[in-house]
Amino acid sequence: MDVKDFDSGELSEMLAFVSDLASSAGQIIADAIRAKKLVTNKSQRDFVTDTDEKCEVIILDALKEKYPTHKFIGEEETAKAGVLPDLTDEPTWFCDPLDGTTNFVHGFPFVCVSIGLTLKKQPVLGVVHSPILEETFTAAKGLGALRNGSRISTSGETQMMRSLVITELGPDRSPSTLDTWMGRYRSVAERCRSMRGIGSCAIGMASVACGRADAMYEVGFGGPWDCVAGAALVTEAGGCVFDPSGKPFSVMCRRVACSASPALEWALAEALAPNSSNPSEPEYFAL
Amino acid sequence: MDVKDFDSGELSEMLAFVSDLASSAGQIIADAIRAKKLVTNKSQRDFVTDTDEKCEVIILDALKEKYPTHKFIGEEETAKAGVLPDLTDEPTWFCDPLDGTTNFVHGFPFVCVSIGLTLKKQPVLGVVHSPILEETFTAAKGLGALRNGSRISTSGETQMMRSLVITELGPDRSPSTLDTWMGRYRSVAERCRSMRGIGSCAIGMASVACGRADAMYEVGFGGPWDCVAGAALVTEAGGCVFDPSGKPFSVMCRRVACSASPALEWALAEALAPNSSNPSEPEYFAL
Repeated sequence: MDVKDFDSGELSEMLAFVSDLASSAGQIIADAIRAKKLVTNKSQRDFVTDTDEKCEVIILDALKEKYPTHKFIGEEETAKAGVLPDLTDEPTWFCDPLDGTTNFVHGFPFVCVSIGLTLKKQPVLGVVHSPILEETFTAAKGLGALRNGSRISTSGETQMMRSLVITELGPDRSPSTLDTWMGRYRSVAERCRSMRGIGSCAIGMASVACGRADAMYEVGFGGPWDCVAGAALVTEAGGCVFDPSGKPFSVMCRRVACSASPALEWALAEALAPNSSNPSEPEYFAL
Repeated sequence: MDVKDFDSGELSEMLAFVSDLASSAGQIIADAIRAKKLVTNKSQRDFVTDTDEKCEVIILDALKEKYPTHKFIGEEETAKAGVLPDLTDEPTWFCDPLDGTTNFVHGFPFVCVSIGLTLKKQPVLGVVHSPILEETFTAAKGLGALRNGSRISTSGETQMMRSLVITELGPDRSPSTLDTWMGRYRSVAERCRSMRGIGSCAIGMASVACGRADAMYEVGFGGPWDCVAGAALVTEAGGCVFDPSGKPFSVMCRRVACSASPALEWALAEALAPNSSNPSEPEYFAL
């Protein structure tokens, strides 16, 4: 049986509901950061886990009650199962209650709540709420992308040499991972205007959606919950979302790149492919 | 004749005066970013130059009128002369009216006004005002460091493996500069918790001063106007400011590093020195 598309009324209603949830969770994050001075190094892990769980409970309980027939793919369940579940055509929610946990521990401002929805395996709705920067990014298929209620679009930039590109140093620092990471970084650095690293996949993608960065890429990040909302934002803002390995993009593949325009997608894909300044093996994009 | 130290009353008065100037210049920057949509790619350079000059005139005219006997070292005069003037023991102002020009062009939020003062060649006062993040960092010798009027201190972190470290990709992308840049980056990445790149030397240093990052380093940045205010902030917040090459720190040397604690200074200096993962030549820190 075919899965039914959502109409714009349904999408609008979901967006309002999810924005409220993100806002409630964001308040918990902001309060925790303000109380951070009380946290010793020894208890940092508990501090993160505690805030993360509080936010996740608020969001997932409400979503499951409101949309009992929908599916849910989350970090905690995946960790328990040891493997990502299969993505189906059914409406499926992805929630990262606290994206940017290292930033959170340090009080670096780029932390957010990220909630996304796929339908027929494609991102169709996304909310990225940053309580410290006081920014809420929202998007739903066909309804455009907004920042704090105002319509946003990508920069439309087409040239790498004029582009600001975001990427992140992940937690895996094994020599082989650092080799490929540095190869990619150098190849992009040789071609673009400058690079930034801000420690949040979702805010990186939101930054491309609103045009304050022109592209971002990340390979081997936490999981699909980090990129579904961002992918909906960039697409609705007129940008491109793609798999930097050249395969068709899937939210499940733990590789994501996005750009302000198709021409910039091609230029970034070329920079990220194995080349003379980036002499990686063909296994380059394996995780 | 010995140059007289400033007393705390004089420093407080200067700090208030300079904060007001930074605030006025910040308003021009914020207005310009809001009007950015009108700017075509062709006119980006004029857009930066225009805003930069407007801010510089406001700040320098007022400082020169208020402190006619002081010296001034600025980007524009240095560019005209083609060489940095000598730093003397006299009170000397350093002003970067718009730090983070690439961010400014793109609307990326880390832009600031940075104004610093040296006496006997040491930073004794600094103001870093970020109009978009709505943060004003101030410090004067013996008076502590503040963020929006509240006392700040570094994180006190001593371990690289728990540290968030900031560095920036500079504008020089020649192969040899990228070689040394990548070598330093990898060596630090192997040792620290994570790294960030935000595109503003002054906000990077202010981030260490207020404890949301633990260390930063930059080699070959614009000039001393980028780091004098930041150095005053970090020092007054209890951190360390040093030359990553191992020489005694001078604001004039276009190399700066800072850390939350002396132990972290030693650990970062070790990571930045030529070593097995950072096999640079001894000429490594030459500019």
